[in-house]
Amino acid sequence: MAKKAVVLLSGGLDSAVTLFLAAAKGYECFALSFDYGQRHKKEIARAKRVAALAKAHFKIVSLKLPWKGSSLIDKNLALPVNRTVREIRSGGIPSTYVPARNSIFLSVAASYAEAIGAGKVFIGAHSEDSSGYPDCRRGYLKKFAEAIRLGTKSGTEGRLSVEFPLIKKRKSGIIKLGVSLGVPFEFTRSCYRGGIKPCGKCDSCILRAKGFKEAGVKDPALN
Amino acid sequence: MAKKAVVLLSGGLDSAVTLFLAAAKGYECFALSFDYGQRHKKEIARAKRVAALAKAHFKIVSLKLPWKGSSLIDKNLALPVNRTVREIRSGGIPSTYVPARNSIFLSVAASYAEAIGAGKVFIGAHSEDSSGYPDCRRGYLKKFAEAIRLGTKSGTEGRLSVEFPLIKKRKSGIIKLGVSLGVPFEFTRSCYRGGIKPCGKCDSCILRAKGFKEAGVKDPALN
Repeated sequence: MAKKAVVLLSGGLDSAVTLFLAAAKGYECFALSFDYGQRHKKEIARAKRVAALAKAHFKIVSLKLPWKGSSLIDKNLALPVNRTVREIRSGGIPSTYVPARNSIFLSVAASYAEAIGAGKVFIGAHSEDSSGYPDCRRGYLKKFAEAIRLGTKSGTEGRLSVEFPLIKKRKSGIIKLGVSLGVPFEFTRSCYRGGIKPCGKCDSCILRAKGFKEAGVKDPALN
Repeated sequence: MAKKAVVLLSGGLDSAVTLFLAAAKGYECFALSFDYGQRHKKEIARAKRVAALAKAHFKIVSLKLPWKGSSLIDKNLALPVNRTVREIRSGGIPSTYVPARNSIFLSVAASYAEAIGAGKVFIGAHSEDSSGYPDCRRGYLKKFAEAIRLGTKSGTEGRLSVEFPLIKKRKSGIIKLGVSLGVPFEFTRSCYRGGIKPCGKCDSCILRAKGFKEAGVKDPALN
C-alpha cells in the first residue's frame, strides 16, 4: 500500500507541480483545497481537475472566516495591477496577502493527515513568493514544520512531517520540473481575478508569464 | 484606545481565566470560539456568557472539518472514563486528542488578530494538559509562536505575538488566579459530555475536581 500524503492544492501552477512531484515519489495523494472566500471559485474547479489528472483524492474544506483584510478576499479593495517584476519584488507585503493563510491551511492539512494516517503534508511555496508573502518564506516554513512535529500525535511519534520541496526554486525552475513531470499546465490558473482568461495584469499573471518566458516554454493556459 | 487582544475561549475554566487575565492587563479582548463538531454545543453557550461577563467581544468560527479521528468529535468512539489522575498522566495521548486542534485555532486567531489590528493572541494551555496533549506543551507553543512571528505581516513587523500565560501553572494555581480575578467559574464548563450536569467521570471532570480540591475552593459549577 502506497504511503499517503496530503498536498495543498490551490488550482495554481506551483501546487500542481508539487502534487505531481509527490505522486511521482510514490505517494497516494490527498489533495486539499479551501473555499475561503477568495474572489473567484474557478481555482477550485481547476484544482479538482488537476487532482483528477494526478489520480489524487480531492477534498474541499469550506472556511468562511468572518473577517476581511486582503484584496484577495475583499472585492472592495483594489488588486495591484501592471507592476513590474522589480516593483513586485521590492514592494513589500502586497494587499493580496491573506492574514496567516498558510498557517491555517497547513494546520488543517496536518489535522487531515493525522486523521487519515498520512505521513507527509506538501506545500508548494517557493522562493519567488518569499519577498511578498512572509508565510512563503523558508524560515517560517521550517519553524512551522517543527511546531507540527512537536504539536501533533503523529509528529511526536515521527510519523508526520511538512515538506516544501519547491522552496529554493524559481518559477522558471518549477515550470521546467512540471514539464518533466507531465503537469497539465493548461488547467492551472494563477490569475487573481475571476475572468474567463487570465487578466495578464495582476502580480500573479506577471510572475507566471515571466516564469514561462525564462523557462523557454509556452504557457498552454494562454491558448 | 485600549490595545486589542484575541483570546481563544472554549467555555472551560482555563481559557476563562486567560480571558479575565488579558482583560485585567488592560486589553480590549476579542474572544474567539470554534464550532468544530465537538460533542456538545453547551461549551459555546458558556463561552458566550463568560465573554459577556468579561466585557469582551465574542465571535464563533464554524469549522466543519470533514474528518473524524477523536472521541471528542466522533460519538462512535468511547470517551475514557473513571481514570485516576495517575492513569490520565501516564496514559499517553488520549482518544480525546483532536488532530492539530490548537494549531488550527491559533492560526485562525492569528489571522483574526491581523485583520482587526490586535497585537496579542492568548491561549490558556497549561502544564497539566501537557502530558496528554502535545499541542498544549510549552515547546510546541514556543515554536508555533515563532512561526507566527515569522509568517504573518504583523508578526514580521513586531506587532503580533502569541501568549500562553498559564503554561507553567497547575490547575489549582489557575483556579486561585481565577478567584483573584473574579472569574465566574459557575458558568464555565469542562465536561467532555453534553449532560445538564458535569459527568464527573471523564478526564476533564476528574482534573477539574482535583484542581478545585487542591486550591481549597468549592467548584461553583457543581451547585
